[in-house]
Amino acid sequence: MLEDKSPKRTDLSELGEFGLIEHLTKNIKLSQKSTVKGVGDDAAVLNHKNKHTVVTTDMLVEGVHFDLTYVPLKHLGYKAIIVNLSDVYAMNAMPTQVTVSIAVSNRFPLEAIEELYSGMLLACEFYGVDLIGGDTTSSVTGLVISVTAIGEADKKDIVYRDTAKAGDLLVVSGDIGGAYLGLQVLEREKAVYMENKNMQPELVGYDYILERQLKPEARKDIIPLLKELNVKPTSMIDISDGLSSEILHISKKSGVGCRLYEEKIPLDPTVISTAEEFKMDSTMIALSGGEDYELLFTIDLADFDKIKANPHFTVIGHIVEEKEGCNLITRDNSAIPLTAQGWDAMLKKDE
Amino acid sequence: MLEDKSPKRTDLSELGEFGLIEHLTKNIKLSQKSTVKGVGDDAAVLNHKNKHTVVTTDMLVEGVHFDLTYVPLKHLGYKAIIVNLSDVYAMNAMPTQVTVSIAVSNRFPLEAIEELYSGMLLACEFYGVDLIGGDTTSSVTGLVISVTAIGEADKKDIVYRDTAKAGDLLVVSGDIGGAYLGLQVLEREKAVYMENKNMQPELVGYDYILERQLKPEARKDIIPLLKELNVKPTSMIDISDGLSSEILHISKKSGVGCRLYEEKIPLDPTVISTAEEFKMDSTMIALSGGEDYELLFTIDLADFDKIKANPHFTVIGHIVEEKEGCNLITRDNSAIPLTAQGWDAMLKKDE
Repeated sequence: MLEDKSPKRTDLSELGEFGLIEHLTKNIKLSQKSTVKGVGDDAAVLNHKNKHTVVTTDMLVEGVHFDLTYVPLKHLGYKAIIVNLSDVYAMNAMPTQVTVSIAVSNRFPLEAIEELYSGMLLACEFYGVDLIGGDTTSSVTGLVISVTAIGEADKKDIVYRDTAKAGDLLVVSGDIGGAYLGLQVLEREKAVYMENKNMQPELVGYDYILERQLKPEARKDIIPLLKELNVKPTSMIDISDGLSSEILHISKKSGVGCRLYEEKIPLDPTVISTAEEFKMDSTMIALSGGEDYELLFTIDLADFDKIKANPHFTVIGHIVEEKEGCNLITRDNSAIPLTAQGWDAMLKKDE
Repeated sequence: MLEDKSPKRTDLSELGEFGLIEHLTKNIKLSQKSTVKGVGDDAAVLNHKNKHTVVTTDMLVEGVHFDLTYVPLKHLGYKAIIVNLSDVYAMNAMPTQVTVSIAVSNRFPLEAIEELYSGMLLACEFYGVDLIGGDTTSSVTGLVISVTAIGEADKKDIVYRDTAKAGDLLVVSGDIGGAYLGLQVLEREKAVYMENKNMQPELVGYDYILERQLKPEARKDIIPLLKELNVKPTSMIDISDGLSSEILHISKKSGVGCRLYEEKIPLDPTVISTAEEFKMDSTMIALSGGEDYELLFTIDLADFDKIKANPHFTVIGHIVEEKEGCNLITRDNSAIPLTAQGWDAMLKKDE
């Protein structure tokens, strides 16, 4: 895949560490007012004045979080940024800067690293964040990407995950389950390709779920939208590990229970049809799939009217007392305790 | 080595990702006033008020930056923190928080990760910084550690590396070359051990340089000391890649040249004797060794009297016009152009 896309191969050792950093960072433009100094010194310098600063970090490891057989490096770079921005949005804050560290083995030519970096810079540009620093090092085997995102918010606006209360409504942005099914399609086509290298992958009709997997977006629109609607969530988290796991995080941290209604879970038609094709249960996928990067939050019941007509939001349940537990209310009205079975567990099941 | 130290082996999969994070972070104490919220949400929250925030990040990769045959995991954890704090000090700022991401393969039992983490927490405690977040993930092969450090300083106090000017004095803290020679001793004893597993390593008498390699410290004392002496460096950088490389960074970024005097380079007696033993040139080691984590800075000539009697500082040269270039003035008074030959180059030479 690398060979097809990058006929030119420049050995990384030709540039050296400093040459590589200079080469990769020379096109960085800074746009955030709070960035005083970006790449190029021992550390970057920020001025967040009277705002609170939020900080989050995520690491992506080859062979664990991505498979370069079917993930283009540019998409991978883009995704490495947005998974971190999603965490900043989940604090009801706006991201402002990122630092990026990558470990690469010498099987990657310069052109491959450029691809990766161009995806990162594209995400930075689209989300209006500054890439302010990082580390570039060699690796004995695979590719490892570590990103730290920094954001800001007024103190009064920050939303934690431990402040949901009984009676609150449980709301999710967008729809879920797509990223997981996109991965299933990619895995299937990889298996076909491995058996017969002349086979072309069958990807037509799966556009939406493939994009959810390969080029996910963080919900940067939701934070200003909630402000515009004058709704401050009582708790919030982003959906990286699957709806069930995230609901349990909010419930456990907040010391509450919840009721999630199966029929309310927002699913895209492609998710429903592809789940059928794979003979998988779409509710199970939504609960355990993960990597959707939607926002899950709770709001005061009094705020319901402000969000009920908005196509970006779906009320999927409500918060109850802790002693009532966390339950999925199925279509036939039975209550099933939610479990934290995530992505890993599903993958194991599939093996 | 792991087996000797940790007879108990708890498989990481017994805990799962969230269990592991909870287990590792349960003893974290927060001490910084600016830490509003640490580990446990989508992001940490900081309040740096009217101070400027500095941010830096470094990645350590098994097989590239460390060899677990002779580096105890606790020391490795400690070092992973201090290499980042050193970058914060090099901005004339004080570190306040760190985030830590680790990728580990399942050849590491829980007890090994606990060792690593205990070293990190020890460093955090000693340097008074809060561990506020991170990511813990699996790796297909080796161990990868990515740390981001955050610090603060008054705007007027921050020192960059691009502001040295002709006439300034070039000053270094402590002494240099020890870390590199410590590594040589460890590599030699490893080779002996590999040949004959019954051989005990000969480490007596090398305490100072072994400590410089295995448990380096960042110069947290220098920033308040300079303030006390009423000296604000005109430029500053930390010595991670070797004196020569760092001098060239300052010179290139500042658009100046420099004269470095060989006879002034501060060397510990153990460095001199061990260099002789290894038939290596101690000046070469100081110039290219790296990993000393001392601070290299320039001061206005007018500040010379304030630092000249201080045992922590050595004036090793001065800044000249760019056109004069960057030269080492040898003991026999010849001028040799400085080159950016670092650690990697030396290692290659040794191979």
